[in-house]
Order: sequence, then C-alpha cells, then structure tokens
Amino acid sequence: MALNEITACAAATAVREGSITSEALVEACVERISAREKVVHAWVDFDGDHALAQARAADLALARGEDCGLLHGVPVGLKDIIDTFDLPTQSGSRLFSGRRPAQDGASAAMLREAGAVILGKSVTTEFALTHARGTTNPHDPTRTPGGSSSGSAAAVADFMVPLAVGSQTGGSVIRPASFCGTYGYKPTYGSISRRGVLILSRYLDHLGLYGRALADLAVIGDVLMRHDPNDFDMRFRPGCALTEVMDEPKTDKPPKVAFVKGPAWAHAEDHMPPVFDAYVESLGGIVQEVELGGIFDHALDAQATIMNASLWANLGALSEQHPEAIEDETRARIAAGRDIRAAEYIRATELADFLGRALAGLFENYDALITAAAPGEAPKGLDRTGDAAFQRIWTLTGLPTLTLPLLQGPNALPIGVQLIGPKGGDANLFRAARWLDRAVC
Amino acid sequence: MALNEITACAAATAVREGSITSEALVEACVERISAREKVVHAWVDFDGDHALAQARAADLALARGEDCGLLHGVPVGLKDIIDTFDLPTQSGSRLFSGRRPAQDGASAAMLREAGAVILGKSVTTEFALTHARGTTNPHDPTRTPGGSSSGSAAAVADFMVPLAVGSQTGGSVIRPASFCGTYGYKPTYGSISRRGVLILSRYLDHLGLYGRALADLAVIGDVLMRHDPNDFDMRFRPGCALTEVMDEPKTDKPPKVAFVKGPAWAHAEDHMPPVFDAYVESLGGIVQEVELGGIFDHALDAQATIMNASLWANLGALSEQHPEAIEDETRARIAAGRDIRAAEYIRATELADFLGRALAGLFENYDALITAAAPGEAPKGLDRTGDAAFQRIWTLTGLPTLTLPLLQGPNALPIGVQLIGPKGGDANLFRAARWLDRAVC
Repeated sequence: MALNEITACAAATAVREGSITSEALVEACVERISAREKVVHAWVDFDGDHALAQARAADLALARGEDCGLLHGVPVGLKDIIDTFDLPTQSGSRLFSGRRPAQDGASAAMLREAGAVILGKSVTTEFALTHARGTTNPHDPTRTPGGSSSGSAAAVADFMVPLAVGSQTGGSVIRPASFCGTYGYKPTYGSISRRGVLILSRYLDHLGLYGRALADLAVIGDVLMRHDPNDFDMRFRPGCALTEVMDEPKTDKPPKVAFVKGPAWAHAEDHMPPVFDAYVESLGGIVQEVELGGIFDHALDAQATIMNASLWANLGALSEQHPEAIEDETRARIAAGRDIRAAEYIRATELADFLGRALAGLFENYDALITAAAPGEAPKGLDRTGDAAFQRIWTLTGLPTLTLPLLQGPNALPIGVQLIGPKGGDANLFRAARWLDRAVC
Repeated sequence: MALNEITACAAATAVREGSITSEALVEACVERISAREKVVHAWVDFDGDHALAQARAADLALARGEDCGLLHGVPVGLKDIIDTFDLPTQSGSRLFSGRRPAQDGASAAMLREAGAVILGKSVTTEFALTHARGTTNPHDPTRTPGGSSSGSAAAVADFMVPLAVGSQTGGSVIRPASFCGTYGYKPTYGSISRRGVLILSRYLDHLGLYGRALADLAVIGDVLMRHDPNDFDMRFRPGCALTEVMDEPKTDKPPKVAFVKGPAWAHAEDHMPPVFDAYVESLGGIVQEVELGGIFDHALDAQATIMNASLWANLGALSEQHPEAIEDETRARIAAGRDIRAAEYIRATELADFLGRALAGLFENYDALITAAAPGEAPKGLDRTGDAAFQRIWTLTGLPTLTLPLLQGPNALPIGVQLIGPKGGDANLFRAARWLDRAVC
C-alpha cells in the first residue's frame, strides 16, 4: 500500500516506531496531490514545501525524544474557514482573498499540539454555504463531492490526506462524506471549539471530521474534543476517550438499533431506499423501524429558520457592504433570513429542545439510530452540492452522528450509513459503529 | 419575639426540637395576615384553614418520627405564577381566574418534599409584568412594594411569612426586596427549575427567594437548587451547600469587593448615591471602585430586546385572542416585541455572552461586585412598580445576586446593598455576603 493510502492510526504508529518518517508520509501525500489536484480541486491553499518542512520538524522532534501526541507527524487537511497563522484563510470568498489570520483557530492549534502536520487548507463553498468552488467527486469528476466541506471530503477520499476537518451547519460534514465514500463524524454540539472559525450560526455550527477508517476518527476526535472557554457554547466533555472504545475487546453483543426515516425520507432519490432497505434487512433482528412523531415534521423548517436568521445576523452587514465581492447566490442565501422575527427564532429553538427530548426518550430503548446519510449517490453536476435534509435534524438537535461508507448505489458510487447517538453519548455511538463496521467488513 | 417574626432557621430548629409546633407557627402567620392583609394586599389565594391543616400534618409526621427536611413545618409563600395542585394559580390575570393546575410546579413540589407548609399564593403583577395588583409597601402603604414579585416581598417584610419565592425576568426579585427591606436572592441562571412556572422568557426567567435573614435564603436555596431535566436550561449544580457556608467558622479575612455603577447608575434617584457612597466609604479598603467598560452601555438594550421578543413569542397569541381579559398596559407590553427581528435577538444574546466574559474577568480580582439594589427608596404611588435598571444586567448575564437590607434613605425607608457573584459561584457570594452582613450587624 502506498504511504498516502495508509490510515492515520497506521501512519502515527509507523512514525512513532520509526518504520517510516513523517517526511516520507507527507511526500507521498504531496505527490498524490500533484498528480490528482487538477481533476479534484480539493485544495485552496496548498504549499508542499511548507508541509514538508513541518514533517521534517516532526521527525527531528522525535529524534530528540519528543513525542507530541496522538498525531505526531501525521498530515491533516483543514477546511478553509478555520484560521491558521501560517496559511491564508479565505472562507471560499473573494472578499477574504489572501487573508492571513494572526493566530490559529483552536482546532488548528490543538492539532499542532498533538504533533499533526497541517497539510493545507481544503476548498469550502463560498462562506460555507451553497456556492461551489470547483471541487469534484473523486469517484466521478462530473459529480459533486457535496458541500460545504467539499475539499476536506474529496481530499480524504482521494488519498491525498488521511484526515481532514470540516464543518456542518446544515449537512456539510456528513453529506460530503456519504458522496465521497469516507467515514465522517459530527460530534455532539459543543464538543469541538469553534474559536477562530467563520461563524454562520452559533446555534448550529459544528466542526466535524473525515477519515478512511473509524479508528482514525476516534483519534482525531480525542485530539480535538477538549474544553475551550473561548467558545461560549461548549458544554459536553465526553470523559470517555474514543480511542479507548476502539481498543475495547471484541464483543458478540450487537447494538440495538432503531431505523428512522423521518421527514428527510421524502427527499430520497428513487434509487436509495431499495439499497438501504436491503442493508437494514441484512442486519436482521438488531434493527427495528421506528417512526418519528409528527412533531418532527417541523424539524426542517425550524433548522432553516435558525440557520437563515443566523446567516443574516452574522453575514448580513458584510454582504450588504461588499456586493461586488460576493456571489449573487450567496448574497441571496444570506438575505433570506433578514425578515425573520425574533419570536419565530425563539419558537424554532424551543422546538429543537422538544425534539431533543423526544429523541432522548428513544435512546432509552436503542443504542443508536440508523438512517441514510444522503438522499442517494452524489448527483451529477458541480454547481449544486446536494440536499442536506438527511443531516439537518441532527444538526438542529446537536446529536452526534457518524457515517460509514458501507453501501453503493446503482452507479457503484458510495452511499453512507448514518448512525446517530444520544447527546453526549459519542463513546457509545462509536461502540455501535464499530460493531456495524465490522459486521460488513 | 412573636412567632410570626422569627427567622425560618429558628422556626425550623424549634419545630424539630419540639419547642414549638408548626401549627402554632402557622397560626401566628395566619393571625398576622388577618390583621394586616387589608392594608398590604400581599395574597391572592390564601386559605388559613388549608395552611393550618398542612401544619398539623407536619406536626403529626414529626410525632411519628418523620422529619421531611430542612423546612419541616415552616411556612413559605409562593408567587402566583408557580403552579400548585391545591391552590389556584392565576398569574395575576383575570384570564386565569380560578385556574387550578393538575400538579405542583417543581419548586412547590421540592418545598413540600422538604416539609414546608405552602402558606398561600402571593400577589404578582399581571403576567409578572408591570400592571400592579394593589399590593402596598409594608413600610408605607402609599408606596409600591416593587414588582412583579410584589406580594412575596411584602409578605416577608411584613412578618406574614418567613420565606417566599418570587421570579425575576427584569428586576422582579431584587428590586422588591430592596423596596420592602428584606433579604433577596436570585441564584445563578439555571439553578432552580422553572417547570410549572409561567414562562416570560426562557433566556431570562429566574426564580428567586425572599427572607428576613441571610441564613434563611441559604436554607431555601439548598432546598430548591436541584437539577431537573424538565427545565431545559438548567446547567449549574452548585455542589456546595449554602447552609454549609453559613456554618463555616467566622473569619476575619474580608472579601475583596469591586463597587460598580455601570449604566444603571444614570437611573439613580438623587437621594441614593450619597447614601451608597457613605456606605462604600464605611467599608474602607476592602472596596475599590471599578468602571464597567463601554460594552456595558448596550446591556440594558440587549436585555430589553430579549425580554420583549420573548414576551411576544410566549404571550403574543394569548394576548391577541383575549383582549377583553388582559389590561391594555399589559397587552401593549407584550406587543412591544412583535416586530423585533431574529438577527437583533441573536446579537443581543451574543452581547450577553461578551458581557458575561468581561464580568468573569473581574472576578479574577474580586470576590464580589457591589452596587445599589434599586434607584433609591420605594417610590410613591401604587400604579408603577419602579425601575428595574439596577437588576437587568445581572438578569441578562445570569450572575447570582443577593440584596442585603443594610441602608436607609432620607425617609427612613430601606435601600438594599446588591452583591453580585460569578456565574455558578453562589457559595462564594454567600461567603462575601455573610461578611458584609455581619460587618453592619
């Protein structure tokens, strides 16, 4: 296996043991990017020399006996809405062309503390909204990789980097993972600090993670899920290390899983339900189909109300002041929330609490919920990034979700299996995911 | 001292030791109410026989060897926005005349569990807003007792009951305490469950407490500050029992106190600053005056935005559907937030977070902040309940506040000294308050 194809866990172990150098690892990634970037367009700021310099520094540190941590010498890609002191951070916007933050965002800083090499900044749609910036799906360059974390998902799927960080306000972590066929993880709301990240909606914004193995998500999750008082909305501290879950002895006891469709299912493409139904059937007795109550019919509207109102609150002034530097599509998206009343916003947040309570009740009987991670295979065309309906309820309610690249559609393109856990129950979610992942492998 | 005049702590001890009965205690309160209610108008639903029946039940339980808890046999008044299964709950509104909830609100239930006798429901302004319902200030019946917890404060001040529960969305706990000369306590936001309480604003609503001694507030605080998953906004669990703080050995080490004026000071009546300045001077070197930064100039507007938007969200439909049953003043108050945009609301909540962070920084150098609890003595007239400017910043930011009835104005009417602690730092706030309380006594 080429070095750019190995998992982050394997890479971290090999670097630590001295069987490979970080430099060789990063060089393999740089070469892959050189070979493929013209097709995939996953990177907005990529400086191979700078990445190699970080790798050599990591190797030298190890030679001196300094082991920085879980990701020592391992390359990671960062969505270009996360500030970095050494690379521009442009948020997919001409307005921020060449913008150089004075310091790292919290997640960039934590990754460096853990020894990671920041390989580069991956393409985001403009302001992490819907206007795409040319990234293609590694499985088929005529199809979208999804968005807004387009480059993060595509780079991991295309073996350019083993790990990447993205973000989700609607469906921007899990959907690209499903379309590109990677593992994707959006932790419980409030688990990863958003200091130094473009704010779309404090209520909805989550950072999320991409990898090519479940265990890799556990490692980067353990690096990033740390309390930061500078993000006012941080609440949960999982307490249980996800890597420890992955190291637990194998068990034959399957999780109890509830298959939920909910209002997202009406957004499914024709080809997806037969594939998903067959998968659920293959799991046998561990899965029961459970209907979400009527209150969930309002969930997508509530998420839209909060997101649209927040976009206007956070980006409205910028959008009005710089119309020439922002795409019309994006300006229209930002303006959509201008007239939303405060009372509507308040009621939407209250609905979210009631949905959260209803879901908490479900977890008294089930270890995890299961549903599709996207309406189907990645759609044709690069202008649209696809429909976020399959993620928005879990973004609204802040529940942790994982997608496993276990299924294929009629064009042999990936479709993810999305698992949802209780708020703060990320460790148990990984337990259930590990079982299902092995159930197929 | 007449039994209706003793503190809750003294009463609880005497009942437990058998030196008095709960019946005798409650009878003294009932007699006081009979004698004074025509002047004070503190109670909306008061049934002396029902209170005495509860007291006799408490005495019988003790005789059987059952001690329910910290407030066994001690009477408590509840603001009439807190549901009780055995007494109507009308929220000061004709619309809810005679309304009988099916079950107790969380605080009523916790008080009963701790052995308390629910003496009755105390007068609130209509919907806990500004329209007064006739309660007078026990020190001068031509003056307001403050509001909206008018009856709770007046009843405690007038020796009708040793303890009462009120609520604060703007300034409705601390201001009436200052005007009536009682101790008042608004715990950290999220410390007392609001299940079964009229909702004005989930963001701002706090339950709060009245007593005639600091130690009494500690006792009822320990009874009520317990987690309840049914109040979605509960967060802090103090962990340190306030009663233990009150029992700590005396210390000669004074707290470090910052005297803050802030934007409320512009609302002071002419007679208050000289009184307060003299008090601060009397404390000597333990107090330093500290200026709140310019960002605090927006605090009152932000609190108004959140409160008004929430009032419309929570009471707008009711107000529109029943114009005949709601006072014009109240309907106008509710309608004030109808046109507030969601983006304004979001920015107001974000400002609150920044204010909270600025205040948290202050507590690195000071144990408590000190400021006036009200603009001055209770104003003349019963139509208005006074100006909430001195409480609204602390309601907005969710910090715990206490008022101590230590000062008097030119008419020999009370003015409270308001102490503010860090979020979740209620125990330390009581430590500082105990020192200042003894410093004067």
